[in-house]
Amino acid sequence: RHGETEAEDMVGVVTGLAWTQVGGEILTIESVSSPGKGQIKHTGKLGDVMQESIAAALSFVRSRAESFGISTEDFAKRDLHVHLPEGATPKDGPSAGIALVTSLVSVLTNIPIRHDVAMTGEVTLRGRVLEIGGLKEKLLAALRAGIKTVLIPKDNEKDLVEVPENVRHAMKIIPVAHVSEVLGIALQHMPEPLKIDEKNAHEGRIVEDNGATSPLAH
Amino acid sequence: RHGETEAEDMVGVVTGLAWTQVGGEILTIESVSSPGKGQIKHTGKLGDVMQESIAAALSFVRSRAESFGISTEDFAKRDLHVHLPEGATPKDGPSAGIALVTSLVSVLTNIPIRHDVAMTGEVTLRGRVLEIGGLKEKLLAALRAGIKTVLIPKDNEKDLVEVPENVRHAMKIIPVAHVSEVLGIALQHMPEPLKIDEKNAHEGRIVEDNGATSPLAH
Amino acid sequence: RHGETEAEDMVGVVTGLAWTQVGGEILTIESVSSPGKGQIKHTGKLGDVMQESIAAALSFVRSRAESFGISTEDFAKRDLHVHLPEGATPKDGPSAGIALVTSLVSVLTNIPIRHDVAMTGEVTLRGRVLEIGGLKEKLLAALRAGIKTVLIPKDNEKDLVEVPENVRHAMKIIPVAHVSEVLGIALQHMPEPLKIDEKNAHEGRIVEDNGATSPLAH
Amino acid sequence: RHGETEAEDMVGVVTGLAWTQVGGEILTIESVSSPGKGQIKHTGKLGDVMQESIAAALSFVRSRAESFGISTEDFAKRDLHVHLPEGATPKDGPSAGIALVTSLVSVLTNIPIRHDVAMTGEVTLRGRVLEIGGLKEKLLAALRAGIKTVLIPKDNEKDLVEVPENVRHAMKIIPVAHVSEVLGIALQHMPEPLKIDEKNAHEGRIVEDNGATSPLAH
Amino acid sequence: RHGETEAEDMVGVVTGLAWTQVGGEILTIESVSSPGKGQIKHTGKLGDVMQESIAAALSFVRSRAESFGISTEDFAKRDLHVHLPEGATPKDGPSAGIALVTSLVSVLTNIPIRHDVAMTGEVTLRGRVLEIGGLKEKLLAALRAGIKTVLIPKDNEKDLVEVPENVRHAMKIIPVAHVSEVLGIALQHMPEPLKIDEKNAHEGRIVEDNGATSPLAH
Amino acid sequence: RHGETEAEDMVGVVTGLAWTQVGGEILTIESVSSPGKGQIKHTGKLGDVMQESIAAALSFVRSRAESFGISTEDFAKRDLHVHLPEGATPKDGPSAGIALVTSLVSVLTNIPIRHDVAMTGEVTLRGRVLEIGGLKEKLLAALRAGIKTVLIPKDNEKDLVEVPENVRHAMKIIPVAHVSEVLGIALQHMPEPLKIDEKNAHEGRIVEDNGATSPLAH
Ligand SMILES: [Ca+2]
Ligand SMILES: [Ca+2]
Ligand SMILES: [Ca+2]
Ligand SMILES: [Ca+2]
Ligand SMILES: [Ca+2]
Ligand SMILES: [Ca+2]
Ligand SMILES: [Ca+2]
Ligand SMILES: [Ca+2]
Ligand SMILES: [Ca+2]
Ligand SMILES: [Ca+2]
Ligand SMILES: [Ca+2]
Ligand SMILES: [Ca+2]
Repeated sequence: RHGETEAEDMVGVVTGLAWTQVGGEILTIESVSSPGKGQIKHTGKLGDVMQESIAAALSFVRSRAESFGISTEDFAKRDLHVHLPEGATPKDGPSAGIALVTSLVSVLTNIPIRHDVAMTGEVTLRGRVLEIGGLKEKLLAALRAGIKTVLIPKDNEKDLVEVPENVRHAMKIIPVAHVSEVLGIALQHMPEPLKIDEKNAHEGRIVEDNGATSPLAH
Repeated sequence: RHGETEAEDMVGVVTGLAWTQVGGEILTIESVSSPGKGQIKHTGKLGDVMQESIAAALSFVRSRAESFGISTEDFAKRDLHVHLPEGATPKDGPSAGIALVTSLVSVLTNIPIRHDVAMTGEVTLRGRVLEIGGLKEKLLAALRAGIKTVLIPKDNEKDLVEVPENVRHAMKIIPVAHVSEVLGIALQHMPEPLKIDEKNAHEGRIVEDNGATSPLAH
Repeated sequence: RHGETEAEDMVGVVTGLAWTQVGGEILTIESVSSPGKGQIKHTGKLGDVMQESIAAALSFVRSRAESFGISTEDFAKRDLHVHLPEGATPKDGPSAGIALVTSLVSVLTNIPIRHDVAMTGEVTLRGRVLEIGGLKEKLLAALRAGIKTVLIPKDNEKDLVEVPENVRHAMKIIPVAHVSEVLGIALQHMPEPLKIDEKNAHEGRIVEDNGATSPLAH
Repeated sequence: RHGETEAEDMVGVVTGLAWTQVGGEILTIESVSSPGKGQIKHTGKLGDVMQESIAAALSFVRSRAESFGISTEDFAKRDLHVHLPEGATPKDGPSAGIALVTSLVSVLTNIPIRHDVAMTGEVTLRGRVLEIGGLKEKLLAALRAGIKTVLIPKDNEKDLVEVPENVRHAMKIIPVAHVSEVLGIALQHMPEPLKIDEKNAHEGRIVEDNGATSPLAH
Repeated sequence: RHGETEAEDMVGVVTGLAWTQVGGEILTIESVSSPGKGQIKHTGKLGDVMQESIAAALSFVRSRAESFGISTEDFAKRDLHVHLPEGATPKDGPSAGIALVTSLVSVLTNIPIRHDVAMTGEVTLRGRVLEIGGLKEKLLAALRAGIKTVLIPKDNEKDLVEVPENVRHAMKIIPVAHVSEVLGIALQHMPEPLKIDEKNAHEGRIVEDNGATSPLAH
Repeated sequence: RHGETEAEDMVGVVTGLAWTQVGGEILTIESVSSPGKGQIKHTGKLGDVMQESIAAALSFVRSRAESFGISTEDFAKRDLHVHLPEGATPKDGPSAGIALVTSLVSVLTNIPIRHDVAMTGEVTLRGRVLEIGGLKEKLLAALRAGIKTVLIPKDNEKDLVEVPENVRHAMKIIPVAHVSEVLGIALQHMPEPLKIDEKNAHEGRIVEDNGATSPLAH
């Protein structure tokens, strides 16, 4: 089988959804990690906005690392590489945000991502999921690719009326408001937060560690 | 609730006001911090002037860090990321200056920002608040977003006559001349200055530590 | 003899296949290594997509280094240089991916590459081989250059019907789905994975070391 | 009072004079310093020539640091930021040279600058003051802003005949040939040179320390 | 005497041959070395392809350094500068490859280059000499400059029929297939390979040191 | 006196000669040095070719530093800044080469440059002086500026016939073939080479120290 998506759950590989003038498309995102110096690289002919999405996704993960069980050392002594295959095809836009966060958390925690889940949504530095465009086209592409579950921004629920009923019924479409909900669904299991004694002693004052991994009420 | 602004006070998240040819708009600014090497990143399709505003806001905070209770180490061992969501929308101009200072002081001191306050104003390296454009449009946008208090530059007081009376009466509009007034209103509480014995011994001669956090008379 | 390809198996030198508007072409890729600081350089008038292919190939090799018997030190204390000769000719595209991985593994393990094998295929960060364009033209160029074995993406098998029968019968054409199959054929012998006690003690948690060098079932 | 210039003497804040097609203008320059690594940043939509002026001003100050009582450590362990407010207005040209030197010496020595002095003049790496353009327009702008004393290049004395007599009589206009004259007038007091035993022992051979702070005869 | 070429053998100075629309030209290449940090600089208004030629030449020399008697320290503690005089004239193309290798080996080994030898040829990372253009024009320029010996790529032997007989007979024209042949002719004497005990102990596994300085059979 | 040239001999300040479409011009070059990390900066709206001239001049001086009495430490622990005043005027071309070398040697040795000497000439990495353009215009400009001695490239002697006799007789015009002749005339006195025991012990093998400061025979 050589389709657009992986046949099994893999670490770092997540299925995003893109939207172009000719319709929706599956957008594979893959991240790997190797011993290094805390640098991140990205490839795949990415436009400025998508490059910024990677930077924002990484800063979100770094700022909440402890709640994902990732230590400061995991960042400082490893390099990350985010690649979007089909390297000759230009890709841009902010809607891969939640998929990028998912890929990074997966590769840093070594927890595989469910291969039958696709997702679309911009993400803020606080993990809030923002509205995206092209919902109908993206859902059609997910259906064609055999996806079973699609995560969409809660702010796009209003757009579901434009999506054909058979598409809406063929997949589980889950509106999400915070990226913590995304991780709860897409990862095989949730990472365990670092315990106090695992925390890096020299880090000093701890900023923002209250409840980052449970869905926030909005 | 999934509106433009947060429903509760958050660390690093502040509501700015933008002005485009089609009217005023809410401009969310969010900053996070993570263990690092003293670097700052920014994302959100920011133009050159807004990028410089971030640099100037950071230098203002760094040059007065002690008066905000922030030590040299807080800068040297943490990275900062400033993001303006809706990553596909270009943003530019100097008028987010005081909002950027507020966001940075908040994230560095861990003091939340009142979510019902919005603000607009260029800031100088000395903390002076300079006049901005589009005051009427910005106040209208703040009203639509349910903002209760708006901080504007004292040099824009003259422009309030052009703002409809119902708008002026629906919100508390506070003219400010120095960013220290902004922090006094927007932060949940003021940070405490570093005491002498908290100061970093190896820093040498201390420059400019007289009264930075109390409003200056102009 | 001064043809397009080498007369003997060499370390780091691999034969790729390019496709331009005037037909297929042999594309030599050569890598060398020298004592250094873990940097990689590339030359040969390479376009953006091909430059990204090198970055992705390197990250693939680094993320699976142990399975190739390459230690963290091999990367940190050596510099790599990837060059595509005929330096005045612009080269671009993602289809040199598997050839780049092969060249890098060869130079890092010191195992020569069979000089009568050519190959074409994009590669993902997980080693999956993706479809390429210009299959017919590339096979014709391989034939003209005296190549005996050509590796093509499994996803391009469907395109073989367009290739003249005499071309298909003159060479061994092997469809591959994962770059591990490529290495098994193109290298004189497979590298031996690092044993546990050869692993760098200070590296911490090991990510993804299950079976990277054996072909995956798809 | 919220005019163009400060109401009191401040450290690092100096009043320059700009000249555009629509007339002269006050050009505020402000510098701050913070604990750092010897880096300098500049903001304010500055053109290439003005950016170079900052670099040259800094090198002038660094090369004569001892005569200003500034030690090598003052540079190595502090960062500087030069900002020209009204961040959306492009600014360029070499004529802010002497104002930039004054701002830098002030912030590095913590000596305030007289707020009723304005100045214009290109500066060389040796401190010589070179001729500028738009003298008449600049003097008119200084007058409007309530400036009492204006420093101009000695090479521009010839242009004073074109300036209306009432303007020339309303302010003290002082032609200067060397930046040491500028500092003598604009700073609240002159800095004291480092004594021999304050000099950094490991610095080795001392270059150019003869009389840098007294006006040169030309 | 102030002609185009040096009057005596010098370290680092080699005579290349350029080809423009108005004919062939002598192209002097000079390299110097100074105590430093292993960096290389190049000047002379060089185009992208020629800049890449320098990078490739350097990587060739570094990857075979031991066979030239050059230690890892020779690279790490010295800086190199490659300059092509007549700094206002743009220069480009890959055909200076073997001249660049010769200049670098000369400056790193301190062995002078014969001043009456000129050369043209692209070089690969393995030292293979590739075909160049403009052979006739280049040979005419060499003749005009009083050159006695010209090294050309073996792949250009076929083009010698287009060169006037008197030109071919006035100079010794030597076709070369590998850069090791070039060094054997152009250097006053060949460098001696490092002996085992001169090798840097901490370097680890040695890659590719078999016979690099003797001509390869092709 | 506020003319184009200095009234007394100064360290680092040298008079070059420029040539534009509207005639010749005096081109002041000034360098300063300060405690630092071995970096060089340049300002004065310099074009690419002139920027490269500075790099080449610096490499010439560094590669022969010992013969000028300059130690490796003098470079590693000081920063240099080369500035060409009148910062708004674009400047380009290679003909300031020998003036740049003179300015750098002066500032690094602290030996003043004779203020009544002007010079023009491209310089190679070996110190050879190459032909320049606009000789007549440059000599006229030197005459107007009260220069007593002008150094020109030996290769430009042929162009002196085009220069009016009164100009040629009003100044001492000295053709030079090597930059060592330039330094012998322009510096107040020649620097003394480092003695063996002043040489930095850890520097290893010494490259090229034979007779660099005495004129070469050509
Ligand atoms: Ca696709
Ligand atoms: Ca919508
Ligand atoms: Ca909005
Ligand atoms: Ca206004
Ligand atoms: Ca070819
Ligand atoms: Ca196809
Ligand atoms: Ca103004
Ligand atoms: Ca004038
Ligand atoms: Ca020439
Ligand atoms: Ca040919
Ligand atoms: Ca002039
Ligand atoms: Ca001429």
